Amino acid sequence: MSEGLEDPASVSRAGRRPEAVPDTAEQFVSDRKDFTNWYKSVLEYTQFLDDRYPLKGCYVWRPFGHQALRRFLDIVDGELRASGHEEVCFPLLSPESLFSRESDFLHGVQSESLRVTHYGAEPLGEDLIVRPTSETIMYPMFALWIRSHADLPLRVYQTVPVFRWETKMTVPMLRNREVNKFNEAHTAHSSRGDMERQITEAVRTYRRIFDRLLLPYRIFLTPPWDTFPGAEYNFDFIGVLPNGKAVELGSVIALGTKFSGVYDIGFTTPDGRRELVWQTCYGLSERALGTAVAVHGDEAGLRLPAELAPWQVVIVPIPTRATAERVHAYAEGLARDLAAEVRVHLDGRDLAPGRKFYHWEAHGVPLRLEIGGREVNADGVTIAVRYNRRRVEVSRAELPATIRRLLAESDAALREGAKEEFQRWFVDLEDEETARSRLADQGGIVLLPWDGTVASGREMAERVGGTALGVPVADPERPLETRDLLGKTSRRLAFARTV
Amino acid sequence: MSEGLEDPASVSRAGRRPEAVPDTAEQFVSDRKDFTNWYKSVLEYTQFLDDRYPLKGCYVWRPFGHQALRRFLDIVDGELRASGHEEVCFPLLSPESLFSRESDFLHGVQSESLRVTHYGAEPLGEDLIVRPTSETIMYPMFALWIRSHADLPLRVYQTVPVFRWETKMTVPMLRNREVNKFNEAHTAHSSRGDMERQITEAVRTYRRIFDRLLLPYRIFLTPPWDTFPGAEYNFDFIGVLPNGKAVELGSVIALGTKFSGVYDIGFTTPDGRRELVWQTCYGLSERALGTAVAVHGDEAGLRLPAELAPWQVVIVPIPTRATAERVHAYAEGLARDLAAEVRVHLDGRDLAPGRKFYHWEAHGVPLRLEIGGREVNADGVTIAVRYNRRRVEVSRAELPATIRRLLAESDAALREGAKEEFQRWFVDLEDEETARSRLADQGGIVLLPWDGTVASGREMAERVGGTALGVPVADPERPLETRDLLGKTSRRLAFARTV
Repeated sequence: MSEGLEDPASVSRAGRRPEAVPDTAEQFVSDRKDFTNWYKSVLEYTQFLDDRYPLKGCYVWRPFGHQALRRFLDIVDGELRASGHEEVCFPLLSPESLFSRESDFLHGVQSESLRVTHYGAEPLGEDLIVRPTSETIMYPMFALWIRSHADLPLRVYQTVPVFRWETKMTVPMLRNREVNKFNEAHTAHSSRGDMERQITEAVRTYRRIFDRLLLPYRIFLTPPWDTFPGAEYNFDFIGVLPNGKAVELGSVIALGTKFSGVYDIGFTTPDGRRELVWQTCYGLSERALGTAVAVHGDEAGLRLPAELAPWQVVIVPIPTRATAERVHAYAEGLARDLAAEVRVHLDGRDLAPGRKFYHWEAHGVPLRLEIGGREVNADGVTIAVRYNRRRVEVSRAELPATIRRLLAESDAALREGAKEEFQRWFVDLEDEETARSRLADQGGIVLLPWDGTVASGREMAERVGGTALGVPVADPERPLETRDLLGKTSRRLAFARTV
Repeated sequence: MSEGLEDPASVSRAGRRPEAVPDTAEQFVSDRKDFTNWYKSVLEYTQFLDDRYPLKGCYVWRPFGHQALRRFLDIVDGELRASGHEEVCFPLLSPESLFSRESDFLHGVQSESLRVTHYGAEPLGEDLIVRPTSETIMYPMFALWIRSHADLPLRVYQTVPVFRWETKMTVPMLRNREVNKFNEAHTAHSSRGDMERQITEAVRTYRRIFDRLLLPYRIFLTPPWDTFPGAEYNFDFIGVLPNGKAVELGSVIALGTKFSGVYDIGFTTPDGRRELVWQTCYGLSERALGTAVAVHGDEAGLRLPAELAPWQVVIVPIPTRATAERVHAYAEGLARDLAAEVRVHLDGRDLAPGRKFYHWEAHGVPLRLEIGGREVNADGVTIAVRYNRRRVEVSRAELPATIRRLLAESDAALREGAKEEFQRWFVDLEDEETARSRLADQGGIVLLPWDGTVASGREMAERVGGTALGVPVADPERPLETRDLLGKTSRRLAFARTV
């Protein structure tokens, strides 16, 4: 085979060619305290994505990052399908007349939406809106699809690019103008009760997704002045970045019958009446992946949850001239044996082992197997564990069980570490001045007493210099109860600076 | 569990809820001779995709169609990865200044490209072009990624929506204005030789993809006046629809160094010189899936290749009051046993078996297992084979092997049937008048003698009333040889009416 045409058999199981791994000579070291720089550097060093595309807030997924993205989307797909959702795909563009039918929605998103006005030099007859979210695109079709109660519930989802041309600062994955992978689910039901049960179920689904990313979060009932345009109420899953900024991981929205009224989505009941459907929608995006990158990393680079890692195990041979043949044969045997169990990659490049160590540590591979003459002679393996950077020696016989145990241990440690940090960001305060200075100095999330009125909530946000996240949900297993809290006095409202 | 929250365990293995299957009471029957109507009807009946979205040439993938689409994309992904390509994802929008740098390309695609000029009511500083294809989006980044010969070859691909706002007639999947799933691969190499080897390899990869769709095609070297803007030459894979119209299934393009010159994509050679990279790109889309739908169907609906079919086997119980319990238990046991082997679905809906038969025949499921009291008593199964609509009785012991054999037989029959039809569309003619009337009356592809000059080729296309597809590649395993034919006289040029 020529240089230009590699043998397909050399392609690794994970689908990524070893040859495409960049030769990174330098160790990645970046102070986590300067989060902005750490995040930018680690994405660049690992070639996760490229922030140099000449359009602000639009990024390029490179092969390594795209593999992690695929694993993230597999988790999302799997959880949505397991809870009864079917995948669909709707168009990107919406005629303005369709887009503007629901007026709250229109006012909420129009000012940040991109407009297509021409093809070539010709003006279009009607402007087209580039999808900021898909309510106005999907719901006219739902009106055609849903006829009777037998067509309900309807539960569909899609993963598509959406656009919000914000003028604020942009950060790869965390605040994009092109959200490259927006996953939005939309459901329709025959009663308010069914809608609310779906909200509860959607919250559970999202909990499972973020749990699999080992991400800590809290759920808030969004304050009424910040509720999704056209919705009755919504819940936001909020995480915190290492710089103390709050990040919205996902949103679960009870739409009620407002959109179904506007788009005339009705159904015939078993006794022949016609009623409007009750709708929900919920969305998340690569922002959750970016948050996982941000919170799990350390000064040596990424630390990936085992489910997200393109490779869970790398094997690095450490040959000498005398042992080379045996070391490589042993390493190849190991790679073959482990392939059925884990995503394993044998790094056979002609580079110093130390450089490979740096490389894979920065890429966050949970476990590295080091194979030298000593390991071959002892029929064993030295395992370097990424999360705590310790080394363990095991016999080959123990290896599969040890790998399983260490991957689970690594995930548990990342989850616990992130959770502890997350809890430190939370403070319950009594006075606004303390809250204001804490948000300004450290960030995090502050809870303050609130009389429950819109006016005072908005004024408090002004005074503390943050965004009102909403009312924390006490028992996240039963989020709907919190809805009843609204309208009562004396409870707590959360504030934060957001990404 | 309430009506609104199904038990996730009831979700079928293929990820599609049985409950979402529409209750189609009527048998699908549509004359294949009226292809336009057949195609429209079958997409509607099977809820494959929806052509009622209020924007011409933009379609909605419904759950059933999206499952077939996923399987199609899995085939494409798998073949591209196996031949050394890595997945990436680039932005949708391109600043006009970037877009217009390569002038041939610009003139070729600008007039059909959509332009974003505003966000909200505000004009943008610079117009943004909505991706018609990604050369101008990717190549400025390639210039940053490629430094030395060690970075070559570069082989990446992405699957993204692209837009060509053509004014011509649109047909779902076959001629869209929003091509929802455009799969485009882009490669860079250190020499012309490597580029040409990549072209050969790409042709092989595309052959494997279309072969797995059981699609017949021929490969043409595109005539120079129709070559991709900015390219040296390109090959098109051409199929024929049941209405005699030619359809381009995919295109493999040798770009040479024109784009790398414009975007300054250079590399350092081992001896320290700086040279431009040699590039290729190749693309295909859901059009190939649409063609598979079109050519394999019959008057009773879809006939899906086993790889594309969301379900390969459906089980339909035929209970009587006396046998119901045993029949259902037997059917459930079968579904469990077969799940490890094939994508199987047990249709347990409370509907007359005949209606289920119609339903699954129209959906193109290759095999239907009918289970009544007789089958239970005999410990056997009646298999209804979709492609030839025959029935076979087998014992349960023989079932797994029989299913494998029948799926292979079904695929072979679809492939052969499509190939025979395809060959009938081809005629080698001597005079243009016969060609003209054949294209007008029947369509298909006509080959005519050609003196090899651009002027005469274009005039011939005018006179025969078709599009010049190019010079047929005699030995598709070695397509590059045909390039040498250009410039010589006396050879054949192919014409067709296109979709």
